[in-house]
Parts: sequence; structure tokens; C-alpha cells
Amino acid sequence: MKLKTVGIKNIALPVSIQKKTGNRLETVASISLYVKMPRHYRETCVSTFIRVLNKYQDEINVRIFSQLLDEVKTELEAESAHMEMTFPFFLEKQAPVTRTTSLMEYKCRFTAAVADKKDFILGIWAPITTLCPCSKEISQYGAHNQRGEVNLNVRFKKSIWIEDIIALAEAGASSQVFALLKRPDEKFVTEQAYNNPMFVEDVVRKVAEMARANPNISWFSVGMESFESIHKHSAYAYLESAPAP
Amino acid sequence: MKLKTVGIKNIALPVSIQKKTGNRLETVASISLYVKMPRHYRETCVSTFIRVLNKYQDEINVRIFSQLLDEVKTELEAESAHMEMTFPFFLEKQAPVTRTTSLMEYKCRFTAAVADKKDFILGIWAPITTLCPCSKEISQYGAHNQRGEVNLNVRFKKSIWIEDIIALAEAGASSQVFALLKRPDEKFVTEQAYNNPMFVEDVVRKVAEMARANPNISWFSVGMESFESIHKHSAYAYLESAPAP
Amino acid sequence: MKLKTVGIKNIALPVSIQKKTGNRLETVASISLYVKMPRHYRETCVSTFIRVLNKYQDEINVRIFSQLLDEVKTELEAESAHMEMTFPFFLEKQAPVTRTTSLMEYKCRFTAAVADKKDFILGIWAPITTLCPCSKEISQYGAHNQRGEVNLNVRFKKSIWIEDIIALAEAGASSQVFALLKRPDEKFVTEQAYNNPMFVEDVVRKVAEMARANPNISWFSVGMESFESIHKHSAYAYLESAPAP
Amino acid sequence: MKLKTVGIKNIALPVSIQKKTGNRLETVASISLYVKMPRHYRETCVSTFIRVLNKYQDEINVRIFSQLLDEVKTELEAESAHMEMTFPFFLEKQAPVTRTTSLMEYKCRFTAAVADKKDFILGIWAPITTLCPCSKEISQYGAHNQRGEVNLNVRFKKSIWIEDIIALAEAGASSQVFALLKRPDEKFVTEQAYNNPMFVEDVVRKVAEMARANPNISWFSVGMESFESIHKHSAYAYLESAPAP
Repeated sequence: MKLKTVGIKNIALPVSIQKKTGNRLETVASISLYVKMPRHYRETCVSTFIRVLNKYQDEINVRIFSQLLDEVKTELEAESAHMEMTFPFFLEKQAPVTRTTSLMEYKCRFTAAVADKKDFILGIWAPITTLCPCSKEISQYGAHNQRGEVNLNVRFKKSIWIEDIIALAEAGASSQVFALLKRPDEKFVTEQAYNNPMFVEDVVRKVAEMARANPNISWFSVGMESFESIHKHSAYAYLESAPAP
Repeated sequence: MKLKTVGIKNIALPVSIQKKTGNRLETVASISLYVKMPRHYRETCVSTFIRVLNKYQDEINVRIFSQLLDEVKTELEAESAHMEMTFPFFLEKQAPVTRTTSLMEYKCRFTAAVADKKDFILGIWAPITTLCPCSKEISQYGAHNQRGEVNLNVRFKKSIWIEDIIALAEAGASSQVFALLKRPDEKFVTEQAYNNPMFVEDVVRKVAEMARANPNISWFSVGMESFESIHKHSAYAYLESAPAP
Repeated sequence: MKLKTVGIKNIALPVSIQKKTGNRLETVASISLYVKMPRHYRETCVSTFIRVLNKYQDEINVRIFSQLLDEVKTELEAESAHMEMTFPFFLEKQAPVTRTTSLMEYKCRFTAAVADKKDFILGIWAPITTLCPCSKEISQYGAHNQRGEVNLNVRFKKSIWIEDIIALAEAGASSQVFALLKRPDEKFVTEQAYNNPMFVEDVVRKVAEMARANPNISWFSVGMESFESIHKHSAYAYLESAPAP
Repeated sequence: MKLKTVGIKNIALPVSIQKKTGNRLETVASISLYVKMPRHYRETCVSTFIRVLNKYQDEINVRIFSQLLDEVKTELEAESAHMEMTFPFFLEKQAPVTRTTSLMEYKCRFTAAVADKKDFILGIWAPITTLCPCSKEISQYGAHNQRGEVNLNVRFKKSIWIEDIIALAEAGASSQVFALLKRPDEKFVTEQAYNNPMFVEDVVRKVAEMARANPNISWFSVGMESFESIHKHSAYAYLESAPAP
């Protein structure tokens, strides 16, 4: 039977996210909510979505998704209910030498679905620096480097921390990106990048190896876009693990 | 065997598009090009992409895609080669009463792939007006209406005109959108919308029926986003035909 | 003497905003910070900006701006220091008939400067509905309406509430926009819009009158963009009060 | 007397631009058109804008602006009429060593006004590479570099070529950006950037010096944004010549 998708997009809501430190992060999420259903659209769909979102808005977190989506799915007699929640996540990072702390922002997305089974994907986007192996090899001195962005999405068995997925994504870099660096830190990241040249495909392969080695991760996809400093276009690479069982 | 995706994104090129009238439209496309390959990434990938694009840039059109992608696929010994080309398409429309002509812009996308078989999808985004059935029913006078956007993607058997796919998408509207309307035209579209209320799901269903009835279309997907005039969020609906053979 | 501008753009930080209800809103701001200086650029500029932002990040609010900007201005021996902070603001609104509450999002911006004098501008963007007077006049039934956005910026004498400036901007609408409306509410806003047709210039004029009548407002600018439901383009109007003393 | 601004935004039109080579570039422009007037808004404003744009659409070029704006200004009895036209401009560049040609895209904007006098500003945005002097100085090897963007706006006496303004903006770079580079070219730009470290303020100062030395340029403003490879934020600088007479 063919399914129709009906939903709402781009609702902004303040949300509260649990951090590894035990604190809560107050941030703002952009939320989309939709169902797949065989029956004709009833205009109460949209009202249902808003009403349910408003009901749970003070406790939007990972555990509440199943409940919220179950409620929507049941009330609309749908085949499945889906939710996407995208928000900026903040992490205190320490500069590599001076240990100066500063706040880094990472885009984060929760993608949840309730059908026969429940599904949940955690995705993050981490800015990194990459330095070009070819440029280093052929040049007497220097090597072009640039900002890049790693997108890592995972399905997991037990619970997982956003912070750990961010760390995994950043591990693929020539060097990491920081909000605040003092001179000893800037020297460190410059030399580290030079010693650690990576093509986009190298970054993706490295992150994939680490994700594969993590027993808690049952599925992942990793993509990397490099905003080339010497070219107008972006280069990118993408890799996905075997489908989740 | 697991495939890696490697490519380039966001190359802008002037392109020339064949119109139904026989004229050519000169416009500017944003192009992404990538391959899926089992082997290790060779840094000549990116050079290959740019070199091949530059070679064909004066003749970028639908027929040249297969050739361009075949060349990329062969040279990089890839499993498949893919290209996405997005550009603004211009159509002269006639206002419904006064027949005043004006130029309307539609976003258009060609998605091509070469693997064992060739694949080509034509997609367009058309702005439309929708008027809410519920609002009309419960109000003594007036009814809220708003801008919406229909995205129709098709696979086809013989060749197909962009203009015809645009017309198909616009047929699902409460009333169409025009660049220039005189008073008799504005009266016409206002009353037409009032007589033709559509929920997002109604629009999608109507366009789907017409696409299904077109013997040249072998597969389609239709989505509609409505930028609600009385709400902050968007409503949307989506529907897809059975998978292409 | 010619001044050079040097700064940083697009730093994201969690911030805490005082609400009229007495509660605090936790949200995320995008911050830009820059100075105008006659002397040669010293690379410690950027470090200064980040360091000072990080110092005040737990208490970012209106009163702290002067202090933060004074510190930046003094340390860099600049002519002036400037800061722009843009964030989503949330307000609980009650539907006009059923009084159902829902959360509405408004873009908000603080623009502060410290030179010889201090300057502060509060800006908000409010979504509204407008209904076209011409369409109503010439049509037997119905009238095209659409989403629009009012941007109101003010300088004020004593303190001012974001909520009050939002209310002022929304007062120019054919009818307001809500997150959640039940049938009696939808009937109300549909009929209210029909009874209250406004061109973009009417909206701007009405908001300007109300701003002018507010003794606490020393300067304002009001702009309105209407995302026409029957046209592809936007219409807009803008008006500014006499320069602030 | 207080003026109201009324206009339309974001009309897309195919346009034809004269190139220095003698050829014409076919591209697509986004156009905004508005007037400042003391009198009450007449809804024919928007119709006038669209009608006049449609009239001139086949010959949109620099000389036609005065005529188009004069017509709008006269018909609406406005104090002044203004137009902004933004489009991608394409230039064939030759790689520095192998002289391989490839097409580079630059954002370009014409800003025209007709009041008591005529006014015209040509603006371009050029991507460049910058290498950080501090990073080079403190590191044993390597130096962080990144993509940046220079925005140069000029008023001029006689006619001026877009190509010449682009060349002026690119001259401020550590090294230029190209679409296609072969190994000898990549070596060249990597070493050139290393030998030519520039802070954002250095770029802006260099471009300003060259603009000031050009007798055809009566006014300019130059801004530069650097998308730091080791930081999350952007750094930027801005400088403007004395006001035009």
C-alpha cells in the first residue's frame, strides 16, 4: 500500500540537552515532525503535531521522543511517525598547550522514528582543519590547508554521549579547530597539521575505522566537505557502514 | 564490496538549455559531480572532475551528461558516476485574462547517473498559491491563503520538456503565481483560489494523478511545502509512485 | 583621520535574556564584535575579542554590553567598539478566542556601540499576515493574503521590553500569526484579516504612528516585506523617524 | 520632508553583460527596485516596477539603468529611484605556471540611483587565499592558511571593466584562487602564499592603496572576510576612502 507523508517543518523551540559533565545545555532546536499514512489527509494532522509538541516542549529530550511519536502515530492512525531535531551544541574545549578553555559550537541532529520498531540516529557536524598531502609533497615550503566539516551519523546500542561522537569526528582531522588559541597553541596546531596531511578520503576512512572499532556503534555514515583554500569549489567524500540489522 | 563516494560540489558554470519554443535559454548552473569507487582515493580525482567539466562546458545539455559521466567513470575506474545540475529556468507566462506576458523563474534540477544503466531525473520547483479549505468553511467571508512550492521529480521514457513538467506541477494549485497581473487578472486569480481550496495533501494527490496518467512518465515524486500565512511553521506533504523498473 | 574596521563575525554563544514575566529565556546568539581604529592592525585584536567574549559569556545581557565594549575599546586603543547580537526570542501567545497558549519565535537583535557616547538599538522581526486591499475590492469573494515580516528597530530612553516592541510591530498586521489555532481562532483571524486589508506601506505607516506616540522611543525604523501569494517577488516598504538627538 | 521607501525585491531575470574581450556574458541576475517618495503609496507602484523591468529585460545593461530608473521615478513622481542587480560573473583565468585556462565565478553587483544626480557603484566579491603571518613566524614549518573573500566597491569617472576591479581585489591576496591547477601550479601557489603572509587588515590596506592609485576610481570601499582554518569564527577588516564629491 502506498504511503503519503504529511508533516510540519521548521518549528523553533527552546530545548534542554543532557551533557556528559552532568549539566544541562539550554539551546534552541529547529524541529520537523511528520507521519506516513495510507489514509486521506485530515486537517487535524497539523493541529495534532503542534498540540503534541507544545505538550512536551518543557521536556524535549531523547527519551521523550518515543512517547511523543507514539502519541502522534496513534492519534493519526499512521504507519509511522518521524521527528528531526537540529540544534547547536556547545562544548568547552581546552587548547592543546596552554589548556585555555573556550566554547566551541557544533551542529547536532536527532532523527527519530516509530514504526514497527523504534529508530534513532545521532548526527553531528564538526569543523576541522585539513592540510593537503599533494601540496606538501610538491612544495619546498608550506602546504595549503583549509576549513573542512565532518558529518558523522550513528546508530548505537546503549546510550551514547554527543561529546564522544564529536571527539570521534574530530580525530580524523589534520588538526582540530578551536575558538581561542594563544601563541604556543597556534604553533602546535600549525605544526600538527603539517605533520598530518589528509585528503578528504583519508579523513573519512580514519573516522570510519574508529567508528567501526567502537562496540557501541551499530551503524554509521561519515561525510567530509573541504572548503579548498586554493580552489573555488569544495571537495568531499562519504562512506557508510553495512546496513543496521 | 563497500563503495566510497568522492566528488566536488558547487561549481558554477554558464549553461545553455533547449526550450520548447526552439530558442535556447542561457542561464547559470550549480554543478556537483561524484563517483562511487571501491579503490583508494587518488588525488587526481578532483583534477579529473574539473578537467572534464571544463572540456564540456560549452555544450552542457542533457545528451552530453552520459558522455561526460562515462568519461569520468572510465578514467577513475569507478563503479558509477553521478552529476547534479541545478539552475533557474525562465518561462514566459500569460496572465489569465489580459494575456499580459511576463517572465517567471523556476528552480530546475537535472540528476544523472551512469552505472550498469543510465539514469536521469528531471526535477522542478514551482511556486503556487493555496487557499485553506477549513478556513473557507468556517469563516463568514475570506479564507487564508499563502505561497506554497511544489517539487515534482520525474523519470521518463522518451524526451520530455521542462515546460510540460512545470505545467503539471502548477495544475495542482488553488491558483497559479504570476510575475505581472493587471486588475482583471488579480480578480480572476483571487476568485479562482477561493473556488479551489486545497490542503497540501490535496495538491500532492492531484499532481500525482496527472503524473500517473502521463504515459511518458515512468516514475515520479511530488512534494509540496506551504508557507502558512497564519502560522509560523510550514505544512508539507509528499508522495512517490512505485519504484521505476 | 581615516578609520579602519577590524573584527570577528559569527561567534555562537548560549545567552540568557530577561523576560517581562520575570523569567529568564535561555537561547543561542550569533555575535559579531569589531572596533574602528586609526592605527595599524595588531594580530592580538582577534584574541582580545575572543578573550573578552569568553570572560563575559555567562552573563551576556544588555547591561554588560557597555562594560564589554569599554574593555575592548580601551585595550585596543580604538575610536569605537561595536557589537551585534542576534538570537531567537520566544513568547507565549494566546489564541484570540480559545486563549490556547503556544510558543512563538521572533528574531531579535541587540546592536550596541561605545564611542564618545553609548548607543543601543533593539530590533525585532515579527511574522504577520497581510490581506491585499486591491484584491478585496475587485473580487466578488476572497482576497489574496500572505505571510509578511515586520522589522522594527528602536532607540529608547529608559529600559524597554522586547515583548512590547513585538506587540507594537504586530499591531500593524491585517491579522497576527500564531503557532496553534483551534477552529474558532482560525475563523477569527480569517475574518479579521478580511476586515483589515493592508498594503505594505499601510503596515509601515501604522507601526510608525504607534512608535511615534510612545514617549519612551527616541528613534525608530520600520520595514515590512510581504511574500506575495500570487506573485513570485516580494513587496516592501520602509520608514524611519527623524535622526536621534 | 520625510521619505517613504517602497519597492520590490528578488526578481530573477536573465541578463547580458559586456566583457572586456568584446564577448557578451549571458547570466542570471537578482534584481531589487525601489523609490523614495513623500506621497502616499499607490498600489500601482509594484505594477510599475514589474512593467518597466519587463520592458527593458532584453537589454539590461549599465547604460539602460539611468533610463529605466528615470522612467520609474517620473511615473511615480518619486524623489529618487534605486536599483540593485546582483549576478555571477565568469572570467577565464590562466593557471600561473602551466597557463591552463579555467572558468572562475565572481559575485558582482550593480547599485544604481537616480535623484538630483545619478549614482552608480560597481561591486565585486573575489575569493582569495590568505596565509597567517603569526602562524608562519612562530612555527618551525607550515603556516595556517584559508579561504577568504574580498569585497571591493567602486565609483568611477569614465567607464570601467569588471575584470579590472576583480584583478585589483585579487592583488591583495597571499595567493589567488583558481578553478583548475596542475602540479606545477599547485606548487607555485603554495610557495607564493608562504612567501606572502597577510592579515585581513594587510589585504584591505593593499587593495586600498591600489584603488587610491587608480585615477579612474573616485570612491571605494574594501572589506575582507577570512574563514579561519584553525578557528570557528571569521576575522574581517574594512576600509573606505573619503566620501565621493
